[in-house]
Amino acid sequence: MYPLLETINSPADLRLLPRAQLKTLADELRNYVLHSVSQTGGHLSSNLGTVELTVALHYVFNTPDDRLVWDVGHQTYPHKILTGRRERMGSLRQLGGLSGFPRRDESEYDTFGTAHSSTSISAALGMAMAAKQKGEDRHAVAIIGDGAMSAGMAFEALNNAGVCDCNLLVVLNDNDMSISPPVGALNRYLAQLMSGQFYASAKNVGKQVLKVAPPLFELAKRLETHAKGMVVPATLFENFGFNYIGPIDGHDLESLIPTLENIKHLKGPQFLHVVTKKGQGYKLAEADPVAYHGPGKFDPAMGLQKSTAPAKQTFTQVFGHWLCDMAEKDSRLVGITPAMREGSGMVEFHQRFPERYFDVGIAEQHAVTFAAGMACEGLKPVVAIYSTFLQRAYDQLIHDVALQNLPVVFALDRAGLVGADGATHAGAYDIAYLRCIPNMSVACPADENECRMLLSSAYEQNHPVAVRYPRGAGAGVATQANLDALPFGKGEMRRQGAGIAILAFGTLLYPALQAAEKLGATVVNMRWAKPLDLDLLAQVAASHDALVTVEEGAVMGGAGSAVVEALAQAGISKPSLQLGLRDEFTEHGDPARLLAQQGLDAAGIEQAISVRFASMLAAARSAKPTLKSVG
Amino acid sequence: MYPLLETINSPADLRLLPRAQLKTLADELRNYVLHSVSQTGGHLSSNLGTVELTVALHYVFNTPDDRLVWDVGHQTYPHKILTGRRERMGSLRQLGGLSGFPRRDESEYDTFGTAHSSTSISAALGMAMAAKQKGEDRHAVAIIGDGAMSAGMAFEALNNAGVCDCNLLVVLNDNDMSISPPVGALNRYLAQLMSGQFYASAKNVGKQVLKVAPPLFELAKRLETHAKGMVVPATLFENFGFNYIGPIDGHDLESLIPTLENIKHLKGPQFLHVVTKKGQGYKLAEADPVAYHGPGKFDPAMGLQKSTAPAKQTFTQVFGHWLCDMAEKDSRLVGITPAMREGSGMVEFHQRFPERYFDVGIAEQHAVTFAAGMACEGLKPVVAIYSTFLQRAYDQLIHDVALQNLPVVFALDRAGLVGADGATHAGAYDIAYLRCIPNMSVACPADENECRMLLSSAYEQNHPVAVRYPRGAGAGVATQANLDALPFGKGEMRRQGAGIAILAFGTLLYPALQAAEKLGATVVNMRWAKPLDLDLLAQVAASHDALVTVEEGAVMGGAGSAVVEALAQAGISKPSLQLGLRDEFTEHGDPARLLAQQGLDAAGIEQAISVRFASMLAAARSAKPTLKSVG
Repeated sequence: MYPLLETINSPADLRLLPRAQLKTLADELRNYVLHSVSQTGGHLSSNLGTVELTVALHYVFNTPDDRLVWDVGHQTYPHKILTGRRERMGSLRQLGGLSGFPRRDESEYDTFGTAHSSTSISAALGMAMAAKQKGEDRHAVAIIGDGAMSAGMAFEALNNAGVCDCNLLVVLNDNDMSISPPVGALNRYLAQLMSGQFYASAKNVGKQVLKVAPPLFELAKRLETHAKGMVVPATLFENFGFNYIGPIDGHDLESLIPTLENIKHLKGPQFLHVVTKKGQGYKLAEADPVAYHGPGKFDPAMGLQKSTAPAKQTFTQVFGHWLCDMAEKDSRLVGITPAMREGSGMVEFHQRFPERYFDVGIAEQHAVTFAAGMACEGLKPVVAIYSTFLQRAYDQLIHDVALQNLPVVFALDRAGLVGADGATHAGAYDIAYLRCIPNMSVACPADENECRMLLSSAYEQNHPVAVRYPRGAGAGVATQANLDALPFGKGEMRRQGAGIAILAFGTLLYPALQAAEKLGATVVNMRWAKPLDLDLLAQVAASHDALVTVEEGAVMGGAGSAVVEALAQAGISKPSLQLGLRDEFTEHGDPARLLAQQGLDAAGIEQAISVRFASMLAAARSAKPTLKSVG
Repeated sequence: MYPLLETINSPADLRLLPRAQLKTLADELRNYVLHSVSQTGGHLSSNLGTVELTVALHYVFNTPDDRLVWDVGHQTYPHKILTGRRERMGSLRQLGGLSGFPRRDESEYDTFGTAHSSTSISAALGMAMAAKQKGEDRHAVAIIGDGAMSAGMAFEALNNAGVCDCNLLVVLNDNDMSISPPVGALNRYLAQLMSGQFYASAKNVGKQVLKVAPPLFELAKRLETHAKGMVVPATLFENFGFNYIGPIDGHDLESLIPTLENIKHLKGPQFLHVVTKKGQGYKLAEADPVAYHGPGKFDPAMGLQKSTAPAKQTFTQVFGHWLCDMAEKDSRLVGITPAMREGSGMVEFHQRFPERYFDVGIAEQHAVTFAAGMACEGLKPVVAIYSTFLQRAYDQLIHDVALQNLPVVFALDRAGLVGADGATHAGAYDIAYLRCIPNMSVACPADENECRMLLSSAYEQNHPVAVRYPRGAGAGVATQANLDALPFGKGEMRRQGAGIAILAFGTLLYPALQAAEKLGATVVNMRWAKPLDLDLLAQVAASHDALVTVEEGAVMGGAGSAVVEALAQAGISKPSLQLGLRDEFTEHGDPARLLAQQGLDAAGIEQAISVRFASMLAAARSAKPTLKSVG
């Protein structure tokens, strides 16, 4: 089924093929990607779009000595398959298996780990400058999509690269604009570059470049620059000091390979604009690249099927419903997303309140300060952002929102472990990095209905509040229809036990309750990591022998840390145990297994407490034989 | 001396003046700025450069109903003087006095607090969209310098603004390029716009704009666009969807005012390119704008005088010397700064090792990932960055450096309180936001020589390490000539006392030692916030009745928090007290007074301990009458 592909165990094998065979190889590779993803789930549309580009890059460049840096990296399945990992594709995104992103510890061909967007030009420029520094003659290539190109970080890198004299090639992988509407000026500009007469006349640019030898090309380029005058270069990228080539058809190996071979001989920063189609070669994905962006398992012949089982409501959906309901009630509400409409559950909000919906592109920094500007004018901005992506806007949160004490609500999705996406996407640090900031509050709902209620609580405040909730579904608690809030900064007693009190922050309340049943322990649903419910804490501390905190977040600096700080400040010395994510980056894999590995399922919580407080538990058991659950 | 200026107590007064008087007003205003700053110290060059622009903006726009957002905001002294704060300029940057930056709680004319760069377009766009949302007809104006324009955040905002239909004006305040060398492609591009034939022909553009009525201008604009073709607009800013006007002379009120009045009537995002000169009107500052960027007090007639008193070595200088010495020893070292060559002490390094010095512009995100790319290739990057600005690169530190465990050294200057610059610049959160990240280490030198030694320790490691040190000078400990390192993750006993042990992280070791003398307490110099010296901690805990942590950083999640976490994990229950910065944003003013206000001078530390552990201290005194200092 893959006779040619099966002979390719490294890019060196690929480079031995006659060019005429590359089309066949690309076809087999595309099929391999399709069938592989259909069996494991994962990213599909983007990988179908980069098949030819991947073949061409490894064919022309001397990888791994030349460095390829893939931006975001979810489009690297063809790259993984061609770089010795074909047979392991069945393990993709599973515990112990291949990562869904490039990883330096997975392959020498993965020169830089990516997953968050827009890092590739900076990293590749660092590599190119290092090569120059060390006198090594190698190329560094960043491959970046048009979405990622809109992030500020990419511009910072372009700005720096444009004055660096080094062998850097930026390949802009520009997906067909007709698929999703452009959200920024840059996307509109790229669409202009691709459309109309310019694109038509530029279609053969690859062949044109081929015809001129490099010195001639340079001369032609200089003449062209002169003719245009100093201040009216052809494209934005030339304004940044790059030599711009393109756009060319990213599925046409006969354009790609000669163009890349010529670019290899040019000096200084080069910019190649390649046009590809998401889902290319699989009609269903071409027609609906969003649905096939990250599908689960499916039958390629049948395509995605509607699930018949009623799905549990996810926290993302809870947020989306709350947002619409609150927007209906309060006309001051505006919703802001940095290019995560689907992921953040804002599709319905966008449809119903288009004037109050702001997708600012992949631009977390701008998103937060834009929200601050709106809050200054009396609007009530809700910024929906993944916990891991808020890291991109940390300074803006501090300097523009918290310092000015503006009422911005941060809806932090994907807090805690995220499963198949792995460490890059885990929202492990938000409690630690948010609670140290004055004026900030942090709510940790334990289930779906609390999520809704705590969003209302956050919205009621006149200062910034983050509500953090995990990926996927929770305990399955039905959400109320109204917009009632929970009290600010207050927790609740969930199970009255004795001896040991478990203080749960967030959804681990439920495994904590299970553990408590076996241990006879008290369970408190703390709900707020900041401010802490100090009254409840003092009361629980006074009536128990030991305190255990549980959170799906880093122990270092997290909610448990807040509790021990508060106890110390109150002059309370009490044996305590902090359970949460260990001080290590987590692997990708099934979330439940990962949580168990971290000792954060019911059994793990029970065991950790049993080991740490063995003698205390034994004493408690003999003293008080019967305990019952309340609330 | 200021007859006209003294009649202006608000922009409304200004707007009553005949236009012919504005030149006189500007001259008086410039003199007022010069004499005011010469008496208080503060920013000078930038404020002399914005005098006419400030007059023109308040004259043309209906402030405060129209919103001015000043990027960075250190150039707002003329704005403060014209908006009712003239008489208070003598209190500038002092405790209880005017802030050196715009602050919303200081004046209704300060529409958005700034200080970190490149936030203004996002904030102003938020305001403009809010006005549109609320049906209010007002203008929002962002005034941004060419340096700030190179940060990614500004591009994120341009990208978003270019597709928003609202009344946003971006004024690019472009300083004379001949003064400081451009560090990025954008600066080079702006220099091209300003130079040569284009600038010559554009000089009268203000008057040209004046001549055409708005509808005609719109028509002309459309025709021009058509003539140029869709894909070759005149400037980069037009590529982003802005209507570009300029460059015009920012010191010529006869250009500024008519141009701004015309722009007021145009719809959609407008971009005005204004050319100014830093230090304008004060010859000494024009000649050396860097020296007059932020001078102390001086006599305007004489200019800055060389200090005769031998200055204490600052931590910044310690770093600068260490960097050169280590670079001499190890050719792999590269030094990276996001536009802070002087502030970070890298002038000598730049001169001696120009090939290994990288000023990437105001681009913290790129700086860190660029360093990561270099580290992948075996170089040893040292990123010099203020604690408060590393907040801008938090995600890059996590995702690109720590996750890949790359050996990047972060030299964090301005950790802790910073004095006159105030809350926006305080480096209060780095211990908290860094220690929660796996693979990161954080060193806290207690004095100058430890700073040097701990930089060497950091450099020796094969993983990322931050060394945090404060603004200014420390205890005055002479630095050694060699590059010997201190042991990784190890503290030292500094004073053997009894009963209470003070664990000091960083320069507060010295006031802690003073307090300990009076209290008979033990003092431990912890040196590392992460990893903690757990052996030393256990040993001290076992031999003392209470532990007190001291740090110049936020208590929430900080080093003291790390200690109580570690004690809990070790099963040690011990009364403890965490001293550090309270959970509030600090004011600007004299650093020693601010530290005292936070209870972090010797007297404050002693008092806090005395109050918290009164009975314990009384018991210790009666039991052990004599104690001596060791080490």
